[in-house]
Amino acid sequence: MKKFLETPINSEKVFSGRLLQVFLDKVLLPNGRTSTREYIKHQGAAVIIPVHDGEILLVKQYRYPIRQVMLELPAGKIDPGEDAYTTIQRELGEETGYTSEHIVALQPIHPCVGYSNEIIHLYIATDLQKSDLLPDDDETLEVISLPLNKALEMVYSGEISDSKTIIGLFWADKLRMDDNLRKRFGISLG
Amino acid sequence: MKKFLETPINSEKVFSGRLLQVFLDKVLLPNGRTSTREYIKHQGAAVIIPVHDGEILLVKQYRYPIRQVMLELPAGKIDPGEDAYTTIQRELGEETGYTSEHIVALQPIHPCVGYSNEIIHLYIATDLQKSDLLPDDDETLEVISLPLNKALEMVYSGEISDSKTIIGLFWADKLRMDDNLRKRFGISLG
Repeated sequence: MKKFLETPINSEKVFSGRLLQVFLDKVLLPNGRTSTREYIKHQGAAVIIPVHDGEILLVKQYRYPIRQVMLELPAGKIDPGEDAYTTIQRELGEETGYTSEHIVALQPIHPCVGYSNEIIHLYIATDLQKSDLLPDDDETLEVISLPLNKALEMVYSGEISDSKTIIGLFWADKLRMDDNLRKRFGISLG
Repeated sequence: MKKFLETPINSEKVFSGRLLQVFLDKVLLPNGRTSTREYIKHQGAAVIIPVHDGEILLVKQYRYPIRQVMLELPAGKIDPGEDAYTTIQRELGEETGYTSEHIVALQPIHPCVGYSNEIIHLYIATDLQKSDLLPDDDETLEVISLPLNKALEMVYSGEISDSKTIIGLFWADKLRMDDNLRKRFGISLG
């Protein structure tokens, strides 16, 4: 660790928005020189692989930064003080209309290590139950149910390009094929 | 597309750094209301899966935004006017000390659709040759060669958490197992 470490000299908040907190830090590099680091402080997020009737539920939504409609696994930002499990229970309900009492944590991922401290907690849900929750009306979403093989084909063709979604689909594929991995995470795919 | 579309009303650059360009846009939502969108404009990046002697080359480096040493596939930002293939040839040499004349494009990924327009072009390299290039001395890197199964185990254990790296490793695993997928992308794993 020590030979890699970059030590902060000072830190300036250069933009404070509703979503993004942007920082510009001066750092001391391991070679004794100084440099700057620009990055986002993010509250973290959670994403879930909802398995229903042997298929995966995905949501279609517009992503303004890339000006494209994307097909993604349900996900959402963690509210201040909230734990990721609570976030994902809520987002699963709001985005898909289903709830689950069988939500299992896989491993968290870092989407953007170059310029964001965001961590995304990854979950899988089985035994989905129809919920009465109303969808969050700030979001325009469409739920799509796809066989896993079809979703993986959309990864290979480039039609699914969202990184947290690709990771979730590959995990689902591994869990499907590997009894030991399912046992290790305590998952039953029914 | 139309029912999802968010139309820009105005756009303000709120921070212009060496790396990050941060924008705050006012948008018209499909439901007729307005909202704001905060996001990064990024020049794009490229990442590569270097396959050498049946193992995968990874690089260990410090990532200041998350204050952790990360194990990642070699990657780098696309310079202005550069194509992603040129970027990845350069980064492969600078970060690992190897070059390859067998670099094949897989599918690009979007790491952070919520707040960045970044696209990362994903490549795989085989038939690596030792290069005489000197490493880029602004970066403190250590090259690690791992069998794919060991690297995948580090994904399941959470030791590898960088999203572009996880995606590259899962792609490598699929390409290893699936003749048709290799043929489709014109890849020979030797």
